[in-house]
Amino acid sequence: MPYFDTASSAPLHPVARQALLAALDEGWADPARLYREGRRARLLLDAAREAAAAAVGCRPDELVFTGSGTRALHDGIAGALAGRRRVGRHLVVSAVEHSAVLHAAEVHRAGGGTVTEVPVDRTGAVAPGAYAAALADAPEPTALACLQSANHEVGTEQPVAEVAEECRAAGVPLLVDAAQSLGWGPVPGGWSLLTASAHKWGGPAGVGLLAVRKGVRYAPQGPRDERESGRAPGFENLPAIVAAAASLQVVRQEAAAEAARLRELVDRIRTRVPRLVPEVEVVGDPVRRLPHLVTFSCLYVDGETLLHELDRAGFSVSSGSSCTSSTLEPSHVLRAMGVLSEGNVRVSLPTGTDPSDVERFLELLPGLVRSVRERFGAPAAAAPGTPAPAAAAPAAERVVDSLGKRCPIPVIELAKVIGEVPTGGVVTVLSDDEAARLDIPAWCEMRGHEYLGERPAERGTAYRVARRA
Amino acid sequence: MPYFDTASSAPLHPVARQALLAALDEGWADPARLYREGRRARLLLDAAREAAAAAVGCRPDELVFTGSGTRALHDGIAGALAGRRRVGRHLVVSAVEHSAVLHAAEVHRAGGGTVTEVPVDRTGAVAPGAYAAALADAPEPTALACLQSANHEVGTEQPVAEVAEECRAAGVPLLVDAAQSLGWGPVPGGWSLLTASAHKWGGPAGVGLLAVRKGVRYAPQGPRDERESGRAPGFENLPAIVAAAASLQVVRQEAAAEAARLRELVDRIRTRVPRLVPEVEVVGDPVRRLPHLVTFSCLYVDGETLLHELDRAGFSVSSGSSCTSSTLEPSHVLRAMGVLSEGNVRVSLPTGTDPSDVERFLELLPGLVRSVRERFGAPAAAAPGTPAPAAAAPAAERVVDSLGKRCPIPVIELAKVIGEVPTGGVVTVLSDDEAARLDIPAWCEMRGHEYLGERPAERGTAYRVARRA
Repeated sequence: MPYFDTASSAPLHPVARQALLAALDEGWADPARLYREGRRARLLLDAAREAAAAAVGCRPDELVFTGSGTRALHDGIAGALAGRRRVGRHLVVSAVEHSAVLHAAEVHRAGGGTVTEVPVDRTGAVAPGAYAAALADAPEPTALACLQSANHEVGTEQPVAEVAEECRAAGVPLLVDAAQSLGWGPVPGGWSLLTASAHKWGGPAGVGLLAVRKGVRYAPQGPRDERESGRAPGFENLPAIVAAAASLQVVRQEAAAEAARLRELVDRIRTRVPRLVPEVEVVGDPVRRLPHLVTFSCLYVDGETLLHELDRAGFSVSSGSSCTSSTLEPSHVLRAMGVLSEGNVRVSLPTGTDPSDVERFLELLPGLVRSVRERFGAPAAAAPGTPAPAAAAPAAERVVDSLGKRCPIPVIELAKVIGEVPTGGVVTVLSDDEAARLDIPAWCEMRGHEYLGERPAERGTAYRVARRA
Repeated sequence: MPYFDTASSAPLHPVARQALLAALDEGWADPARLYREGRRARLLLDAAREAAAAAVGCRPDELVFTGSGTRALHDGIAGALAGRRRVGRHLVVSAVEHSAVLHAAEVHRAGGGTVTEVPVDRTGAVAPGAYAAALADAPEPTALACLQSANHEVGTEQPVAEVAEECRAAGVPLLVDAAQSLGWGPVPGGWSLLTASAHKWGGPAGVGLLAVRKGVRYAPQGPRDERESGRAPGFENLPAIVAAAASLQVVRQEAAAEAARLRELVDRIRTRVPRLVPEVEVVGDPVRRLPHLVTFSCLYVDGETLLHELDRAGFSVSSGSSCTSSTLEPSHVLRAMGVLSEGNVRVSLPTGTDPSDVERFLELLPGLVRSVRERFGAPAAAAPGTPAPAAAAPAAERVVDSLGKRCPIPVIELAKVIGEVPTGGVVTVLSDDEAARLDIPAWCEMRGHEYLGERPAERGTAYRVARRA
C-alpha cells in the first residue's frame, strides 16, 4: 500500500527503530545524574548531539534537542526576538513559511512587534532582493528574519544562501526552517539559527532540532530550566534523540543516490500528469526543488473526494485544498503563489519508493479525476481552439449565483457559463467560498480569460471575468 | 546493580516497551490525516487518551499530551493564569513544589504578577489552613493555586483534597502536580488542573499529561496550533503516548500490592538507618508518604562523596545536598522544611525491587558513611550524656573561621569546638557556604543546642550557637 505523504511524516527508518530499541535499554535514566545509569545516558546524549551537529553543520554546543520541530520554531523565534529586543522589534518572514512560523509571527505582532511577509513568485520562491528590501524598508530595526530551506507544500527550494548574505550585510540574524530538507543535505550559507524535525527524515516523533550559532544574541523565553543549555525545558527524550541522530546519519549517507532516484520518479509525475489528466496545473519550481515532492491541482475537482478515492485505491497523499482543511480555507502557500487550489494533490515519496507504485498511481489517477469531475458535473475538457457552441446571440453579461456552494462548484459553474457569453463578455460569479478568491483568478490564468477583480456583494463576493479565449 | 532513583526516572516498564514497539509500526503517521495510516494513528491516539483519562479520573476531552511533565507544568500554569487574568494576578504555590512550578512562578512575578509561597512543616507538608490564609490574605484576587500530590524529594503526601476544598470555597482553581504519585493512584478531591510525567511511572520519556477540567478558564499561551485541542503544540509523539498510557494502566493494576511491598522495604530503611548510622536524620512524614521513597541526611558527610561511594558499591541514589547541585545550594525542599541537608540521600525504589538489595544497602551504608566521615575528620559520635572533656577552664566564646570551606566542613568544625566552651557559652561560625545557613540550625536542633541566629560578617555570614547539652 503506497504511502506518498512523507512530507507530513516519514515512515520510521529501520536504523531509527534499531537505535531507539537500544537506547530504551541504555538511555532511560536522567543524564544529569552522576551514577552509572546517568553517565551512560549522558554519553548517549553527547554522542547524539555530536552526530546531529555534524549533519547540521554546527558545533555540538550550538545544538539542542526540543520536543518537536514546532517547538524548535516557536522557541527559537521567541528566543531570537527577545535576544535582540533592544535592537528592534521587526520580524521578516516569507509568505509561504510553515504555519508554526506564521503563528509565531502573529504572537509577535499581537505583542506589539512589526512583521513583514515577503511575497513569493508563482513557483513559490522568494527573491533575495525582496528580503533585502524588507530589511531596508523596515518600520524599525529588524530583530530576525526567517526563511524555510524548501517549501513543505510545493517543494520549491528557497535561495537561502543569497538571503543569508543579504541578512549578513544588514546585520540581521537569519533563522532557517530546514524541516523538509535536512535529510537531503546541510543547509548552505551563513544562517544564524536553524530548526528541523526528526520525523520528517525517518526519525521518530518527539524530537526537534534547534541550532543557534555562537555569537547570535539569544534569550530563551518561559520559565528557566537547566536542561539543554537552558534552551529546551523538560526531561530529555533520550531514546528518541538517539534514534533521530542515528537515522539522520544513515539517511544522509543514502541521500545523494536516493535523491537522484526519487527525482526521476517525481519527474515522471510532473511530465505525465498534465498529459494524462486534462486541466491540471503542476505547481512549484520544476528544477530547484526537493527531490521527492510534487504538487498539482485539478480543475473542477473536489480535493477531499479525490483524496478519498485515492485512499480507497491504496494511495495516501495530502492536499492543500480548502475542503481538506479544518478552516475551509485553501493552503496559505498556494494562495501566496496565486495558483489553483481546487483538486490539489501533494505527492511526497518516501525513500525506497517502488517505481511500480508510481506507475500504478499514474495509471489510476486519470480515471479517478474523471469520475470525480463527472460526479460534480464539470464541463467536458475543451480541446484548445474549440469554438463556443453556436447559439442564439449570447448575452454580453451573465451572473452566476454560487452562494452557499463550496469548491469546486463555483469554478465549474463559471466554466459552464463562460461559453455562453461572447468574447469580451463578462461573467460575474457570486460566491461566499474562500477558495473562489484564489481559484477563479487561477482558472482565468489557466484558460486565458481576463480576471477583472472582485468586489463585495450583498452576500459574499462578486468575482468578474471577461471572456478572452 | 540496584537502581534506587526511580523518583528521577523509572526504568522502562516491559509493557511500555512492548506498546512502544507496536506503535512504532502502527502509529508513525499524522493522526490529523484522513488516509488509512492517519486514521490508524488517530485510533491509537484516541485509545491512549481514553486510557490515560480513566487513570487520571477525567474525561478524555479534558486531557492532552505534552512533550514532558515540565512542559505540562509550564504550559498549564501559564494557560490557567492567562485564563483568569481579568480576575487577578495572584498565584499561590507551596514552598516545596518542583522547580518547574517555582520557575513558572518566577516568570509570573517578573511579568507583574504576585506570588505567595505557602510554607511547610518539618515533615514537608503544607497545612490546608495555610492555603486558606494565602487565599484570604492575597494582595489581589488569586488566579491559581498549585500543590503537588506528594513531594519528590522526601515523599511526604500533601493534603490535596483538603486544599482543593479550601480553593473551591474561595472560587480559585487548584493545579495538582501529580508527577510522583500518579502511578500509585488517582489524585483525590476536586482539583481543577492536573499534570504528570510518564517516565516517572515507567513510561517513556517525552510524554507529559495536562488535564484541565471543563469549566476551568484556560487560555493557551504562545503561538496557536491545532494539535491537542490547541493546548500542546507540535506533532504528537504518538508511539511514546501509546506506551505511556499502556504502562500507566498496568502499573495501576499492580499498584496496591507493590505499594504494600515497597512500603515495608522503605520502613526497614526508615527504622534501621538511624540505628546503624550515628547522627542521621530521616526526613519526611513517616506515615503519610509515597510508598517507595525515603530520604535521610548524615551529619558530617559530604553528599557527593557518599553518592560516589554508593555508586562504586553499585547503588544509584540521589541527593539534595548542596555539593551535588550545580548551584552549590542545598535543595529548596530541605531548606523549606528546615532539616539537615548535608550528607543527604534519597532512596526511591523501583517496582520489583528485590528485598535483598535493600538488605545489602543497609549492610554497606554504615561503613561507607564512617569512611567518608573519617576522610573529613568528623568528630566521633557522642554517646548521649557524654560529659565535655575535662580541660582548663574553657573560654565562654569561640569563633570558628570556616570561610572558603564547603559543606560538611563548617558543621564539623562547629561540632569539634562546641565541647570546648562551657554550657551557655557561644560558638560563632564564619561561613560563606550556602549550606551552612540550613545545616547549622538543623545541627543545633539534632544535638540540642540553641541556634542564636545569623548576621552578616565582613566576609560571609556569622552563625551563632549557644551550647546547651
